[in-house]
Amino acid sequence: MDIATIIGLASSFGCVLFGIIIGGAGIATFINYPSVLITVGGTIAATLIAFPLPEFLKVFKVSMKILKSPQFNAAEIVPLLVSYSEKSRQQGLLSLENEVENVKDEFLKTGMRLIIDGTAPEEVRDVLENELEILAMRHKRAQELFLTIGKFAPAFGMIGTLIGLIAMLKTMSDPSTIGPAMAVSLITTLYGSLMANILCLPVAGKLKTRTADELLMKTVILEGLLMIQAQANPRFIAQKLVTFLPPSLRVSVLQKKKTTSESLGGVKNAQVQVQ
Amino acid sequence: MDIATIIGLASSFGCVLFGIIIGGAGIATFINYPSVLITVGGTIAATLIAFPLPEFLKVFKVSMKILKSPQFNAAEIVPLLVSYSEKSRQQGLLSLENEVENVKDEFLKTGMRLIIDGTAPEEVRDVLENELEILAMRHKRAQELFLTIGKFAPAFGMIGTLIGLIAMLKTMSDPSTIGPAMAVSLITTLYGSLMANILCLPVAGKLKTRTADELLMKTVILEGLLMIQAQANPRFIAQKLVTFLPPSLRVSVLQKKKTTSESLGGVKNAQVQVQ
Amino acid sequence: MDIATIIGLASSFGCVLFGIIIGGAGIATFINYPSVLITVGGTIAATLIAFPLPEFLKVFKVSMKILKSPQFNAAEIVPLLVSYSEKSRQQGLLSLENEVENVKDEFLKTGMRLIIDGTAPEEVRDVLENELEILAMRHKRAQELFLTIGKFAPAFGMIGTLIGLIAMLKTMSDPSTIGPAMAVSLITTLYGSLMANILCLPVAGKLKTRTADELLMKTVILEGLLMIQAQANPRFIAQKLVTFLPPSLRVSVLQKKKTTSESLGGVKNAQVQVQ
Amino acid sequence: MDIATIIGLASSFGCVLFGIIIGGAGIATFINYPSVLITVGGTIAATLIAFPLPEFLKVFKVSMKILKSPQFNAAEIVPLLVSYSEKSRQQGLLSLENEVENVKDEFLKTGMRLIIDGTAPEEVRDVLENELEILAMRHKRAQELFLTIGKFAPAFGMIGTLIGLIAMLKTMSDPSTIGPAMAVSLITTLYGSLMANILCLPVAGKLKTRTADELLMKTVILEGLLMIQAQANPRFIAQKLVTFLPPSLRVSVLQKKKTTSESLGGVKNAQVQVQ
Amino acid sequence: MDIATIIGLASSFGCVLFGIIIGGAGIATFINYPSVLITVGGTIAATLIAFPLPEFLKVFKVSMKILKSPQFNAAEIVPLLVSYSEKSRQQGLLSLENEVENVKDEFLKTGMRLIIDGTAPEEVRDVLENELEILAMRHKRAQELFLTIGKFAPAFGMIGTLIGLIAMLKTMSDPSTIGPAMAVSLITTLYGSLMANILCLPVAGKLKTRTADELLMKTVILEGLLMIQAQANPRFIAQKLVTFLPPSLRVSVLQKKKTTSESLGGVKNAQVQVQ
Repeated sequence: MDIATIIGLASSFGCVLFGIIIGGAGIATFINYPSVLITVGGTIAATLIAFPLPEFLKVFKVSMKILKSPQFNAAEIVPLLVSYSEKSRQQGLLSLENEVENVKDEFLKTGMRLIIDGTAPEEVRDVLENELEILAMRHKRAQELFLTIGKFAPAFGMIGTLIGLIAMLKTMSDPSTIGPAMAVSLITTLYGSLMANILCLPVAGKLKTRTADELLMKTVILEGLLMIQAQANPRFIAQKLVTFLPPSLRVSVLQKKKTTSESLGGVKNAQVQVQ
Repeated sequence: MDIATIIGLASSFGCVLFGIIIGGAGIATFINYPSVLITVGGTIAATLIAFPLPEFLKVFKVSMKILKSPQFNAAEIVPLLVSYSEKSRQQGLLSLENEVENVKDEFLKTGMRLIIDGTAPEEVRDVLENELEILAMRHKRAQELFLTIGKFAPAFGMIGTLIGLIAMLKTMSDPSTIGPAMAVSLITTLYGSLMANILCLPVAGKLKTRTADELLMKTVILEGLLMIQAQANPRFIAQKLVTFLPPSLRVSVLQKKKTTSESLGGVKNAQVQVQ
Repeated sequence: MDIATIIGLASSFGCVLFGIIIGGAGIATFINYPSVLITVGGTIAATLIAFPLPEFLKVFKVSMKILKSPQFNAAEIVPLLVSYSEKSRQQGLLSLENEVENVKDEFLKTGMRLIIDGTAPEEVRDVLENELEILAMRHKRAQELFLTIGKFAPAFGMIGTLIGLIAMLKTMSDPSTIGPAMAVSLITTLYGSLMANILCLPVAGKLKTRTADELLMKTVILEGLLMIQAQANPRFIAQKLVTFLPPSLRVSVLQKKKTTSESLGGVKNAQVQVQ
Repeated sequence: MDIATIIGLASSFGCVLFGIIIGGAGIATFINYPSVLITVGGTIAATLIAFPLPEFLKVFKVSMKILKSPQFNAAEIVPLLVSYSEKSRQQGLLSLENEVENVKDEFLKTGMRLIIDGTAPEEVRDVLENELEILAMRHKRAQELFLTIGKFAPAFGMIGTLIGLIAMLKTMSDPSTIGPAMAVSLITTLYGSLMANILCLPVAGKLKTRTADELLMKTVILEGLLMIQAQANPRFIAQKLVTFLPPSLRVSVLQKKKTTSESLGGVKNAQVQVQ
Repeated sequence: MDIATIIGLASSFGCVLFGIIIGGAGIATFINYPSVLITVGGTIAATLIAFPLPEFLKVFKVSMKILKSPQFNAAEIVPLLVSYSEKSRQQGLLSLENEVENVKDEFLKTGMRLIIDGTAPEEVRDVLENELEILAMRHKRAQELFLTIGKFAPAFGMIGTLIGLIAMLKTMSDPSTIGPAMAVSLITTLYGSLMANILCLPVAGKLKTRTADELLMKTVILEGLLMIQAQANPRFIAQKLVTFLPPSLRVSVLQKKKTTSESLGGVKNAQVQVQ
């Protein structure tokens, strides 16, 4: 569970609710079903025109994704790749076959299978980079979907308010009714703004940061696998891969690697010959 | 028929209509022919200055296009290319001549003719990539046309409202007429906003996603044809091309390929020798 | 004459005029010389600071340009290049010397002179690409000039309105004068908005589309000339160059080429040897 | 201590305070705890959704960073690199080992260790450029975090104002209460605007300029180290590296270098042989 | 003196002054010292946070620069480079030593010294391109400084207006004071808008066009020097360099070159052998 998302969603709704209650006009004042229809309905309709149906339908599935923690983290992937490197240097690339089964990440799995099958290094890089590019494209589309909703929501909010204002101005006779009528018109603007700023834009933001993290982690895997295939020195692999991590993580990751490499024994001496 | 576009258009108009009816001022309140003229007329006029006439005239033709389903989908094109690859490996590249007739997509047709004619691979890539680039340029222009309309529409809506407000403020004597006069001024803003958010921006959005999908699909065709020309292993072609597809489609596409390849018989064995 | 620009300008002014007349306050209400001075004067002044004087002075000359039709169109340039190719294949590159005189486009002229003079192909490409790049830069500057005017105009419109509002609010004593005074303040906002949306932004848009078309056409010329210099097959040149055109034009252009090539006679047979 | 940041923060708060006091309504008028909750709470909540928790938690640590002066400045790093170059030319690359201990910058340290260890030049460039790229990415994320806060703050300010306005309009009976109620609604807009323009956007701006300066300085280190490894002429290194500095600094830096190089003695004569 | 900047500044202030006088409320109405403090002070404070102090302090020096005419113009630099080329072809590259003293532009001077010293062509290109890149970066930062001021100014204008509005609404008792109080609040918005649109954004615009012109001119110098070093044909150099100029200048520049080259005598004949 991604705790930041949960806290964020709960507290943003909480803040708005608190503001409404403090306002003293009661929650009922802020609930207006026709306004929901115009804002939410209009926004969804415009987004349906702008995006293919299958992508639109995946919107909930994708947004659920940001409630989960990311699959991999840097403190795990670098030592894992280093341990694969040590194993393959001692027992050959084919020895990684047993490890493939335990790998959950599809990208790492594909890459490992490619190097076990003896695919040419350029081919491995080509296939994996293509995979990364296509993944980046797909994720960017998902972000764009949320950004699009977040762009249309305030627009339909404003359209609803305009409709309300025009109706009110046209038929106004008793000045005392202006206030409440205007309040109702403004509700669509509020809905549009909430929809954009509490849901869509933050979700699009998280999808963006997640994608960047995932691409970075997969670049680490890609670079690591190519060095494993080239039978590079495990210590060198570790040193190179940690440069992808923030300095604060580097020491602990290199530490972890050391332990692993020592427990495998004899690897230290073997390092001199290579690279 | 692209059902998402139809539903989207119907429901966006529906939402707005519903809001108007709920507003209680009657639909007639929201219909104002001079406002239509200022908003729609001014927007079209500004767009006519900004774009060449032939492109502007194609605006309806292009917008009709997004009502149709896209020509190709991934689940079809990969198995098709793999079957071409199998056929050409068994019977030579010239055997594709019979298939060309049945191909509807102009891009695939051009590419197949080029490889049947024995054009050099670099030349095939050059011609097809040029085609893709020019296609992307043309489609981007069409999007820009809609974005331009979507940018001018709210501007002319605001111009109309300003004209109305100035006229009203200048001649106002009886305070009771302010409301209805202001209502009329605001109608142009509403029209401009609807024109942009219900029509132009969503259509521009769909053109963008369609173009991205079409370019991706044509990149699959381009890469596939080049591998067919290089007489690559059909299984390898399938594996490489599916990386362009979302993971959810990959299994079903590879399955389909299997069936096709088995029905052609004997191809499986032939695969060992190559690559 | 570029008819779209003329119609666009006429109808955008027409729409606004119509709106004013319909408004019923009379055209005189909307004419306010001090407002013209603040909006137009301020905008021009700010643009004068932002751009070098010689470029600013060319603003009218450049904007006149968009009233003229573009010099070349695709349906002419491809057959012309193909006919040059045929002539040069039959009678040598020097035979193009007679054609140079009739060429009006400076870019085509420069390119033809370079290949007649026997300049090295890389040098021809280098000079012509440099020319294209500098041309794109110059045109982009002209667009930016109009975009800058279109950005400052609404800002000075708002400044004028603020000045009017502050003066009015400060001195207001008789509530009945508020309306007309506010009307006058709003006129500068209207002027700024009209200046931007009826003139500057559409003109900048047309300059952008024109530049894109001109660059595309000159890329066709560049690629064509280089293939002519390399003595490529005229049919191949035609096929390659039409890929730069929209599909709708391709057939008619290839048709035209056929006629030309047949009228020159004997070229068809010569084609087999080359490429 | 970065004095500009301190002065900036103090004077921006000072200006606002001054404005409030001059306004005459008393500071208490501008303090409204529910408004703080809605604006600050909502903004933080939305940012929590958009960014991973660990990054969000580092926000204060990162913002403290801009209160400190930058680590290195150009007038120091170039002479330092030149002195290393002179030392390594006289006593060999290994002589830099003694210097490494005194180096505080991690990037320079890593680079020096790499060249002392005899790593291949391409490998040194590769590792250091990767480090720079990852550093740029991480810093850009920190900027984006502040930009995101600066984008959500005014949005939640507006949401708070809308809530206040709707509540007020709905329940308004006594016209004399409109003023104060509206004042309270506007306070959230003020808070959002202050949060964005006094804190987040300027901090994001400083992070941007700092990152650019740091990357430039580290590029100087990278280029310098590679030239030291290649045993280039120290005078040539100095001349090349000063081109990264603004002209105003160049003379003083070259002067400083001269003194250093003369104090080391004999280096001048050695320069003729190399390069 | 750059006359456009002077005229622009004078007339933009003139237009605003005129508007104020015409408004009839007197200049005194528009002068409010607390508003100056909030808008100008707040903007400067925010910019101080966002930019390093030394850069901020150079803001006046940089803005003075745009009052001066640009150093070089195209009609001078091309004939100058051609004359250097002729001299160096007749008397050797070392003969340029006498010319270096008279050169004022630092970039041209550096380049000439490099080629006189016999630096390798790649090295000359490398040093000069680096210089150009760093120059572009520095100039872009100066633009960004003005853009930042131009972005914060309206924001602090709005903050000032909000403070004024809140104070007014909170304490309003006598409706007749609303007008003047509102007028005062709006003054900060006016100040912010003027600061941005009369000073900062136009100055940033001029810095942008100046930088582009300077970079283009320095690219001409760079390309010219490299061709001089390669002892290219002076006529060829002239033809290549004029492609960087707008067509309108080309003929006059080539004319000028001719005269120069003829006055030097004998160069014409020498041209045949080279290139």
